[in-house]
Amino acid sequence: MSERIRATYQIETAYPLLEAAESMAGEQSSGTFVDVPGESEELRERHAGRVEDIVELDVTDEPTLSGTTPPDDEPAREYTRAEVTLSFPVENIGVDLPNLRTMVAGNLFELRHLSGIRLKDLELPASYASEFPAPQFGIEGTRELVDVYDRPIIGTIVKPSVGLSPDDTADLVDDLVDAGLDFIKDDELIANPPYSRVEERVEAVMGAIHRHKDRTGKEVMYACNITGDVETMLELHDVVKDAGGNCVMVSINDVGISGLLALRKEADVPIHAHRNGWGALSRHPLLGFDYAAFQKFWRLAGVDHMHVNGLRNKFCESDASVIRSARICQTPIASEDDVVMPVFSSGQWAGQAPETYEALGNADLMYLAGGGILGHPDGPEAGVKHLKQGWEAAMAGVPLEEYAEDHEELRRAIDHYGPVGSGR
Amino acid sequence: MSERIRATYQIETAYPLLEAAESMAGEQSSGTFVDVPGESEELRERHAGRVEDIVELDVTDEPTLSGTTPPDDEPAREYTRAEVTLSFPVENIGVDLPNLRTMVAGNLFELRHLSGIRLKDLELPASYASEFPAPQFGIEGTRELVDVYDRPIIGTIVKPSVGLSPDDTADLVDDLVDAGLDFIKDDELIANPPYSRVEERVEAVMGAIHRHKDRTGKEVMYACNITGDVETMLELHDVVKDAGGNCVMVSINDVGISGLLALRKEADVPIHAHRNGWGALSRHPLLGFDYAAFQKFWRLAGVDHMHVNGLRNKFCESDASVIRSARICQTPIASEDDVVMPVFSSGQWAGQAPETYEALGNADLMYLAGGGILGHPDGPEAGVKHLKQGWEAAMAGVPLEEYAEDHEELRRAIDHYGPVGSGR
Repeated sequence: MSERIRATYQIETAYPLLEAAESMAGEQSSGTFVDVPGESEELRERHAGRVEDIVELDVTDEPTLSGTTPPDDEPAREYTRAEVTLSFPVENIGVDLPNLRTMVAGNLFELRHLSGIRLKDLELPASYASEFPAPQFGIEGTRELVDVYDRPIIGTIVKPSVGLSPDDTADLVDDLVDAGLDFIKDDELIANPPYSRVEERVEAVMGAIHRHKDRTGKEVMYACNITGDVETMLELHDVVKDAGGNCVMVSINDVGISGLLALRKEADVPIHAHRNGWGALSRHPLLGFDYAAFQKFWRLAGVDHMHVNGLRNKFCESDASVIRSARICQTPIASEDDVVMPVFSSGQWAGQAPETYEALGNADLMYLAGGGILGHPDGPEAGVKHLKQGWEAAMAGVPLEEYAEDHEELRRAIDHYGPVGSGR
Repeated sequence: MSERIRATYQIETAYPLLEAAESMAGEQSSGTFVDVPGESEELRERHAGRVEDIVELDVTDEPTLSGTTPPDDEPAREYTRAEVTLSFPVENIGVDLPNLRTMVAGNLFELRHLSGIRLKDLELPASYASEFPAPQFGIEGTRELVDVYDRPIIGTIVKPSVGLSPDDTADLVDDLVDAGLDFIKDDELIANPPYSRVEERVEAVMGAIHRHKDRTGKEVMYACNITGDVETMLELHDVVKDAGGNCVMVSINDVGISGLLALRKEADVPIHAHRNGWGALSRHPLLGFDYAAFQKFWRLAGVDHMHVNGLRNKFCESDASVIRSARICQTPIASEDDVVMPVFSSGQWAGQAPETYEALGNADLMYLAGGGILGHPDGPEAGVKHLKQGWEAAMAGVPLEEYAEDHEELRRAIDHYGPVGSGR
């Protein structure tokens, strides 16, 4: 008997819960609404989706999403919300990530039985999950490359997002590496545009990084955005490598799972996953994907770093959601080796370090700040120092204000960005 | 001066509309919220996103999507909806489809200024749009391959969706081709699973199709689902071709834009695009994508057929939306050659033909029926005949009931599936 993949959903429906859940299992396996020739009992038994569990949550008067057709075409009186777990045989798809997503998500979002439908999580048999590429570097491998073990990897994003020539970018990076950063990334809005071809940009930027390494022994990681078609990504990956580059970045939703798999296959450096577009898949609570489900596809495909926003970020995500996402990145799927670095960014300064550390219980993360470094009143070097000091304090359990008493950069940052506990 | 890409959004915001629109343009170009060194006026001038137009729509008391932070952190009193058009310089990305999507969509869905954000449409300079691959076959090329010019291409989907062996599939196809179909496709839930490898399935299915061709001269098109990683898709494409196959199908959202581009580059047969997963991107009216915007990425990437659902379908999409989508598929982006076949399916029988034809004004479409063929009381051949008769009547402007007077298969179908104007 084939092992089974379990998928958990939150749904809302005007139908009896079992009927709605069975329509989901049917749509994603036997897949038709009427009995058709050839669909024998034996095939059903072997391949059908199965309703494993239904937990009723609450009831509402109005359908959350429109387009649902209540039973018997009469206006429904109530819509029940529930958590539904389905299972599907592994054999229905084999070891195949794009088709895994087709099976557990696919047409479900359009089912007329449902006025709310969100994929919350996926549970894969370990033997099955372990057949996917998974991260090549993950948390440990990334730490080794940057030689930072006992605190977050501190980084920044090259700004402005668009318009800088390769030489201007390298000039900025020259200053940033001198400031003591571990990690620098491109913005997602600059990949390989005519005004800054990766070939020239990575050459210029790695020049700055290597000169800094010659002076200090420290090699900063640079996530060069190579988002593009597959041929371009593979070419640019090699260009990055030839320039001594040590990381590539990809906008995962815009490249897609198959493109990412093609890159992972050839990649010799960590893949920094930018999740822009994620809001379209997640922002409505009864539609799309929870991060727990979403990130699994990309981790199995082999990314090494996943963005999670940050506490008191400038976007619309709550702190609770950010922390939940970061914990998920640090939770094994099939083995300890498939955990990935959660990447905190957006509005970050030292002010969020204590709560971030307290909530996560570890410092296995990347902590990116833009204005939190460049906007420090005493310049970028003080900006980086204040972040490191903030994390030292957080990890030692010392209140920031107290630690700031004899750490000037932190004190100045609190005056400038503070109070502690706010975003910037 | 660089040409500009225009993107139109529907938004909802508690902020003054201009401020909200400028935050969108800023986020997707200069991309930071504070002034940072190096961002000179000249760079802004050349690369900044621009607010082109704002049309206020209506006002609501409650935010539609949560997570928005009203101005000054006070509870907002009202949320204004508006259509906003932004423009971005082509130079910011170059000819690059994944990065085009990053730029016009990307982080926008998470902007805290917005309690609703949907990308409605994209307007690309023709010279720019014409640099993308675009469909290789489109409407005309597909018609030539199936040798059907004066009516819809009539097709079906092999069911059950999962479990059939290659030989069982071929047996079904044997019957289906004899029924007089033009087109047969795999379900999206069967790609290359262990129990039905494409290599064996396409060999068996094309055997049936070629035997039928030897008898009748007619070659039925078979869209073989090769969804998978890039290497697999390219291999399977060649397997399909070597078996004399004439079409491949891909679950576009699960493969992604870069994967699709890689396939398009090597493809010698039409690419049938299955849009499953589309509901997650579209079902909430103030989040995600309108079909007008969504389909442009895939058509520019080079698909030939795009699913649009059908009138009175079994999913949650309205008839108006279906027709709008089909018209969009038939509307050129950069040239007459980049139009694609809209694929009607789900709950279709002859009963929807008159309205479909009337609404579209042409028969340049694929019309797929499952139960509408296999469920015909006199069998699949009568099922196919009734569909053709239904379309003859529709295109001649003769009411179905009248045409059925001397067309037995149509009459029997109306008795079975009817009344006319209903779905099945």
